[in-house]
Amino acid sequence: MQAQPQAIPFDAALLDRLMDEAGMEVLLATSKPAVQYLLGGYRFHFFEHADAIGQSRYLPVLAYVRGQPDRAGYVGHRMEKAQQSVEPLWVPEVRNLSGTSIDAMRHAVDYLRSLGIASPRIGIERAFLPADALEVLREAFPNSTLPDALPVLERLRAVKTEAEIDKLRLASDRVIESMLAVMAGHGPGTTKRELVEALRREEAARGLGFDYCLITAGTSLNRAPSDQRWEAGDILSLDSGGHYQGYIGDVCRMGILGEPDAELRDLLAEVDAVQQAAFRAVRAGAPGGAVYDAAGAALRDAPNRGHMEFLAHGMGLVSHEVPHLTATGPIPYAAEDAERPLQANMVLSIETTLQHPRRGFIKLEDTVVVRPQGHEILGDAGRGWNRGGTALR
Amino acid sequence: MQAQPQAIPFDAALLDRLMDEAGMEVLLATSKPAVQYLLGGYRFHFFEHADAIGQSRYLPVLAYVRGQPDRAGYVGHRMEKAQQSVEPLWVPEVRNLSGTSIDAMRHAVDYLRSLGIASPRIGIERAFLPADALEVLREAFPNSTLPDALPVLERLRAVKTEAEIDKLRLASDRVIESMLAVMAGHGPGTTKRELVEALRREEAARGLGFDYCLITAGTSLNRAPSDQRWEAGDILSLDSGGHYQGYIGDVCRMGILGEPDAELRDLLAEVDAVQQAAFRAVRAGAPGGAVYDAAGAALRDAPNRGHMEFLAHGMGLVSHEVPHLTATGPIPYAAEDAERPLQANMVLSIETTLQHPRRGFIKLEDTVVVRPQGHEILGDAGRGWNRGGTALR
Repeated sequence: MQAQPQAIPFDAALLDRLMDEAGMEVLLATSKPAVQYLLGGYRFHFFEHADAIGQSRYLPVLAYVRGQPDRAGYVGHRMEKAQQSVEPLWVPEVRNLSGTSIDAMRHAVDYLRSLGIASPRIGIERAFLPADALEVLREAFPNSTLPDALPVLERLRAVKTEAEIDKLRLASDRVIESMLAVMAGHGPGTTKRELVEALRREEAARGLGFDYCLITAGTSLNRAPSDQRWEAGDILSLDSGGHYQGYIGDVCRMGILGEPDAELRDLLAEVDAVQQAAFRAVRAGAPGGAVYDAAGAALRDAPNRGHMEFLAHGMGLVSHEVPHLTATGPIPYAAEDAERPLQANMVLSIETTLQHPRRGFIKLEDTVVVRPQGHEILGDAGRGWNRGGTALR
Repeated sequence: MQAQPQAIPFDAALLDRLMDEAGMEVLLATSKPAVQYLLGGYRFHFFEHADAIGQSRYLPVLAYVRGQPDRAGYVGHRMEKAQQSVEPLWVPEVRNLSGTSIDAMRHAVDYLRSLGIASPRIGIERAFLPADALEVLREAFPNSTLPDALPVLERLRAVKTEAEIDKLRLASDRVIESMLAVMAGHGPGTTKRELVEALRREEAARGLGFDYCLITAGTSLNRAPSDQRWEAGDILSLDSGGHYQGYIGDVCRMGILGEPDAELRDLLAEVDAVQQAAFRAVRAGAPGGAVYDAAGAALRDAPNRGHMEFLAHGMGLVSHEVPHLTATGPIPYAAEDAERPLQANMVLSIETTLQHPRRGFIKLEDTVVVRPQGHEILGDAGRGWNRGGTALR
């Protein structure tokens, strides 16, 4: 029994409008998140993790002509047909012909030419199109300009469907469950590297793809996995990203081997107060910057504000995507959404970090959905001091 | 306690010679396998799996000047310092300054200029350097040519150290153990998708990074995960890649829910005979093509040769790398190593596939090391018909 092709799985009218505003007639998506999104969740399983093969790499190319979804085309790898026979694609033209990044782009160019497209403005993902494929495209369309399609693609994805939110909720819940299992299942003397390996296993056991774990133990502020041991009395921070079908759960939770003293309880409460203040500002229609304003007000009341840092950013298939609320932080871009109203079903990652010079690294990170009347937290468990080693007794 | 920086972890004289032959004065490595290799195993843990972040992506850049390892430099992400303080790099100059692919290349250009390098031939990984970073490089060095460094990099890696072979052996062994656990632990009615998820968990539980699993059940030749069920009497093929610290284990093993009949036993023996014939041709000094010659001779004797396919290729940090023994198969490149002698400690993936029109997909894939007097198989377990569901009884 052949499965039926799906309908267009995204808001094509929105994509057309965004492309029009950006002056693009054609879009060539080549990053994994963008291709997955435009193909309604499809990811070629063979290259889900690695790209490199032979003297080249896997490069999927999705070509979309503005206003003409019926002329969309997909260039896949020669091995993709089997998966598509059980997960049919919505795009009218599928050419599973590529073996390298160069011939992927050659086939995409052939397809654009077959549509009679001559000298268009072609949006490309400039950070995700390899140099060799770029040169094939430039030679084929020497008079075309090639603006960056990434801002269009992330804005297209900004408002999530409930099905997407379900995946983000599942990912958040399971990353937290994994963290709690790791903390409960390990005792004094475990190295940070062993804890990260255990978290990787716990996430995998729950059907997630492990992305990373930043980890501190004791009073150290170093978040890299290492041979440092988690010892009796030590606090522990686990900040991990893990994804379910590409949708990222990214949370931070705290553990301790023993009982937190009053100061530690106060410090975590101080961090959580900033989180809660930020949560309360999340509501459809509120300007994105209101989240920062609320967190800023809470920070002004925080005794340890000099060591604290707040960050909020959109999240989904990519960690840090629209809405962009701040120009500071680890990712350089304009705070273009600070003035714009938050939209229902946007998803925010909200994080407050306290790098305490004496007590160590204390942080909470959560994911919240913008709702018409407020917010929904995806994964609210384990916000306090989670006791280590409890499953060992 | 600061860990000590390592010595140069690769054969710098060989790299210098390969760069000289390829006419490169400078090499800029930007793919994960190449950067890991040149940094002696170092992989920034935060971006080990995903690349996309914000409106750009992670791009590590390792700059090597021919004949001058003391002038090598590394441009890392702003967050990399913590890991390097526990895993110090050998490169004399480390600049953890990048947030995007564009500024990664800007900092690499700054570094090259600080060395007084004006208009060099710069080897780049053309399939792994993003378009935006390429344009930064072209603007900075408009008179430079930019040949592809990938053939140099894979040839540098072709002969493995014993430490690398240990990782490949561990990966192969654990992929096979994972497969046997999945087969033994599942019975009739399990879907192919569930079996792949189970294999992902089993590999993760053994400390591997799961890459993919191609899977067939019953008489179907479709190797994509799907809702098709493994039923009583059905054969099963599991062809999976999983890596240990980047080093790939890539094997295929067969299972069956029940007992194989005489024909199935003969068919698998026919496949294994080709494998064993190929193994016997592996020896340092033998021309690479001897492996194909031996397999070809065995295929001529095989009753089902019309449905069989043989493939052998180098493997290591990349599936399909030097030695390149054939121009056919899924990866397009010249069979440039068919005439050259195999070298001790090269590693080959050897695979024989029988797509039987009536009985289904029967395949063995193994990894072998070229040794002075012959070959060593990495992971020799489970070559026969592995009975399904035995752990359920």
